[in-house]
Amino acid sequence: MKEYYLKKADENLPELIYEKIRIASEARELFRGDSIVLDLGDYYVGRFSFVLGYKDMYLDAPVRLCIKFCETKEEIDTDFSTYHGALCASWLQEEIINIDMIGEYKMLRRYAARYIKISVVYTPRILTLSDFVFTSETSADVSSVEKLEIDDLELCLIDKVARNTLKNCMHRVFEDGPKRDRRLWASDFRLQALTNHYTFKNSALVRRCLYLFAAADRSEDGFLPAYLYENPNFFSGTWYLRDFALNYVNALSDYYMHIGDSETFLDIYPVVKEMMEAFAAEIDENGILVTEKQGNIFIDWQGELKKTASLQGVYLYTLEKLSSALARLGHEDAELYNSRYESAKTAALRHLYNANENNFANAYDEYQVNIHSVVWMILGGVVSGEGAWEMLLRVMNDEKCPKIVTPYMNHYLVEAMMKLGKEKEAMEHIKSFWGLMVKQGADAFYEVFVPGHPEVSPYLDPMINSMCHAWSCTPSYFIRKQAQGHL
Amino acid sequence: MKEYYLKKADENLPELIYEKIRIASEARELFRGDSIVLDLGDYYVGRFSFVLGYKDMYLDAPVRLCIKFCETKEEIDTDFSTYHGALCASWLQEEIINIDMIGEYKMLRRYAARYIKISVVYTPRILTLSDFVFTSETSADVSSVEKLEIDDLELCLIDKVARNTLKNCMHRVFEDGPKRDRRLWASDFRLQALTNHYTFKNSALVRRCLYLFAAADRSEDGFLPAYLYENPNFFSGTWYLRDFALNYVNALSDYYMHIGDSETFLDIYPVVKEMMEAFAAEIDENGILVTEKQGNIFIDWQGELKKTASLQGVYLYTLEKLSSALARLGHEDAELYNSRYESAKTAALRHLYNANENNFANAYDEYQVNIHSVVWMILGGVVSGEGAWEMLLRVMNDEKCPKIVTPYMNHYLVEAMMKLGKEKEAMEHIKSFWGLMVKQGADAFYEVFVPGHPEVSPYLDPMINSMCHAWSCTPSYFIRKQAQGHL
Repeated sequence: MKEYYLKKADENLPELIYEKIRIASEARELFRGDSIVLDLGDYYVGRFSFVLGYKDMYLDAPVRLCIKFCETKEEIDTDFSTYHGALCASWLQEEIINIDMIGEYKMLRRYAARYIKISVVYTPRILTLSDFVFTSETSADVSSVEKLEIDDLELCLIDKVARNTLKNCMHRVFEDGPKRDRRLWASDFRLQALTNHYTFKNSALVRRCLYLFAAADRSEDGFLPAYLYENPNFFSGTWYLRDFALNYVNALSDYYMHIGDSETFLDIYPVVKEMMEAFAAEIDENGILVTEKQGNIFIDWQGELKKTASLQGVYLYTLEKLSSALARLGHEDAELYNSRYESAKTAALRHLYNANENNFANAYDEYQVNIHSVVWMILGGVVSGEGAWEMLLRVMNDEKCPKIVTPYMNHYLVEAMMKLGKEKEAMEHIKSFWGLMVKQGADAFYEVFVPGHPEVSPYLDPMINSMCHAWSCTPSYFIRKQAQGHL
Repeated sequence: MKEYYLKKADENLPELIYEKIRIASEARELFRGDSIVLDLGDYYVGRFSFVLGYKDMYLDAPVRLCIKFCETKEEIDTDFSTYHGALCASWLQEEIINIDMIGEYKMLRRYAARYIKISVVYTPRILTLSDFVFTSETSADVSSVEKLEIDDLELCLIDKVARNTLKNCMHRVFEDGPKRDRRLWASDFRLQALTNHYTFKNSALVRRCLYLFAAADRSEDGFLPAYLYENPNFFSGTWYLRDFALNYVNALSDYYMHIGDSETFLDIYPVVKEMMEAFAAEIDENGILVTEKQGNIFIDWQGELKKTASLQGVYLYTLEKLSSALARLGHEDAELYNSRYESAKTAALRHLYNANENNFANAYDEYQVNIHSVVWMILGGVVSGEGAWEMLLRVMNDEKCPKIVTPYMNHYLVEAMMKLGKEKEAMEHIKSFWGLMVKQGADAFYEVFVPGHPEVSPYLDPMINSMCHAWSCTPSYFIRKQAQGHL
């Protein structure tokens, strides 16, 4: 089947859409040591070209330039040589190029940038640079986006930045970050696809990514990888995060519910069905999903977090969506997952819910109280209504609780609020979290955002953080879904 | 006429000949900080490609490599960051490249190298490098070279290195040096064309260069520039060296004498004729060619050198060759230049020759005794026979005389010896000068070679010296001309 799935993925390879951004600038005269900063006016992903010339005398030696692509204004003056993070420094977008001839020079690699800094390392004489063109590329068709008919200007602005985030992560696949990572991650993909259904409507790209994961090599115990590579070669990831695997299933259910394409759903369903058996095999005697290694659960970049309750919530959430999709199809397996859902919910109430404290401090999680468990227990349908809302507010206001760190987990917090009917509060949270990035000048939403703490990085150096990141694009989903009255 | 000359130059643009040099090597496994050195087995000019792969795990970040192209073995361990020379450091062949994808990577620029050093600056995991291919390019067709039928193995080896030097300087034009400069210089071109007539026989390339200079903008006082650029745009040089301008005339005369192509000669002759009038205008009341600025005479990279006698010699040499070519054509101007030759020779004997000392210590040259004057007075026919030979030996053995520095001036020294019938001594000089480079491991002949003084550089740092240089290729001319019994 792998070959078949890859063939189907190839059939859905999108055409990229190109746009030339001509950077208004006079020809600049520069000598050794000089530098200029170009402003693209917005955040784009693509390729850069310019014209090298000379002022008075033909350049009698090659010209060496240092060209730095900056996602944000702050990055312009960052000294990459001081980088000390955990990820490979090669992600830092800086090139040293030697140009032999005057005329147009096209840089071949793809970059993600709002600003471009060009420094002259060596030149024999005064050179000129002109005709700066950044050719953006994306598989997001901006003309497919419907006008957002709401009066709230702040939400409109947040929607604009969220769409820009998604657009710049849409290429041959839904990329994680166009500067750094660029691979297809299951949980990011699920959120991108969800937002795409409400914005660019590139269903072929979603289909492609669904097929790519279907083609991936599963772990010995039957789980799909959290990520994969597909360019130039297909290569399955080797990290098997349980919540990511479940979110792949959610992406498939979402796709069918939005697009109604039963053929693709049924094409891929056997892979999902097999994997759901692998999940069933990890259910313990209490009915709780327990994976041997805690490192196989993500939930959030929150080192202190205990994750059993959260994972159980993701599992419930997935079972419910899958069962619903199958029910809509009239598929006999709908009941199978529905019955597993009921068992897992009962188990959660019995073994994860702490009736004494009215929270989810449980033995599996060393009785830790945290926001994440409550969010996922709401999304999993274990708790609901005003009681759940009060519980959520209580843990959010509890200073001792491990905090939500990623925009990714913030998405599920908002989704939980929405599920409880707290639309106003959900929109307020979007404003206070994503809206704050916009107020601080974001052109796209960041991978990591902890208000007041720009130094935070899961990679030990914020230089390497991605400033346009897949999992941060979902405000457009919420805002547009609400505007359509679908809630 | 400029347009016409450029059109003719274009018509003679050579096809480049490519050869793939596959560097025998196992796939190399490398991590950050590792480096490898590849040996091409000989000196080549061309483009480099290789295949990037991974050992166990897909590379999840770009790979940053530093790739250094070395003309010589010594250059491998040279630290370019310590460069302090006068020419632009961008000539130093070192690239920092970022590679996003596994597979074949083709470097686009052209390099001149015997060795290639690859260092891994950043990689996320162990990478592999394999399938190293250097695709050499030249407009020299090695199959056109006749077998050299001589028994002297040392001369055969010198001829081999000299041919390699010329071959690697032959591209769209006769380049000065394939690493550094790459432009068309008149005096270098003249020596290259001369050697080409006896080796690769690419007369179209000679024709192209003759037309290119014919198209050049002359100085206000009527002189052709010493150099020009032609790629991507035609651009006339702005340095008007008198001896270089005369050597352009010599290149045209040589071309006609070797190829017999009167059409091209007569096409270009009007340019030469006009310029010879400019020379005539610089003749002073004594009949000596005197240019206002001494900086407009090259002769040799010898800062102490006084150059009037030498330049007069170049002028005489040029008049004689031009007159001979015109005479062979039956052109009426033959007599004009012959008569100027006789006047200039008489003037040299009267005002430059020092009868008391039997040398060329003269008032114009502040009574400096130097080898260069003697060489050029021999080549100009002012002195000849055993008397001239003794004079030459005397100045060569005079410790106080400014020494010959460049292979270029060494060429004319050998030519002077040949003219005096001292073939054996000339060949000995070739062995002691060029042969010493071969003994020291040269794959091509250097721009600068002062035995025992590798630190010598006209640019204040030997790092920037060209180790394969146009004007050093002429041993093949002498050796093959002698082997053909043409002397």
